[in-house]
Amino acid sequence: MATTSGTTMTDGARDGLTRVLARDFDDVLAALPAALKTEGFGVLTEIDMQRTLDQKLGVTFRRYRILGACNPKLAHEALTSDVTVGLSLPCNVIAYEGDDPATTTVMAIDPADTVAAANPALAPVAGEVRAKLARALAALDGGVGHG
Amino acid sequence: MATTSGTTMTDGARDGLTRVLARDFDDVLAALPAALKTEGFGVLTEIDMQRTLDQKLGVTFRRYRILGACNPKLAHEALTSDVTVGLSLPCNVIAYEGDDPATTTVMAIDPADTVAAANPALAPVAGEVRAKLARALAALDGGVGHG
Repeated sequence: MATTSGTTMTDGARDGLTRVLARDFDDVLAALPAALKTEGFGVLTEIDMQRTLDQKLGVTFRRYRILGACNPKLAHEALTSDVTVGLSLPCNVIAYEGDDPATTTVMAIDPADTVAAANPALAPVAGEVRAKLARALAALDGGVGHG
Repeated sequence: MATTSGTTMTDGARDGLTRVLARDFDDVLAALPAALKTEGFGVLTEIDMQRTLDQKLGVTFRRYRILGACNPKLAHEALTSDVTVGLSLPCNVIAYEGDDPATTTVMAIDPADTVAAANPALAPVAGEVRAKLARALAALDGGVGHG
């Protein structure tokens, strides 16, 4: 991890798909759908992992959500090319409370590791989705003071 | 693909995680949650891709569902070891109508390709989940006539 600004650290290997924000978890969670929508993603699913683990196992876990983001046009393009690509859809975007609860980490799956790994012919569409996810996450930095 | 029985073809590279069933789509969909539950998976999310593509794009697509299956105990074990593993959770199980609508294909993601690829230390838990998913899919063959 390399510090790239006062509020964001970016994993070099997953450039742009990991952001550690100096923002409260609930605040980030509230901002995520609009940031994704700007890039054409709807949120099709949402899992509250903290609640799920509490309900199913009675264990305490940090605040943690898994959002399933889908760009319908690009999903349709991929599914029409390869009907099995649904194994890698939607694209997960996770948000979780940091060890320092004043920070929230947001990460998106890299479609190069899922969609394109399963079918190299889908590398172009995976690249397009990757760029859109990175832009959506970058938008979460906006307006935050430097920490 | 190799024919392994009258009703099932199994992809050699994903042994046990792909099944082509001589069963109606709705019938398979109705049977899936119980088959998954037997192996300790709850269905946390469900996407009706046919409906989503119709609503968002106005296009016609085959009957197609993406189920998000999660074994809470194993998910907790993985998340405690690596907080970022939510990028690969839940495990997708897809079901779609075949080109021959008398058949339905069911596939599960291989956690070796997602969870363990992202973090090799999680290979043992990924292997355990993989075996459970394969058994759940195998149970869908039960009681179906051959041919």
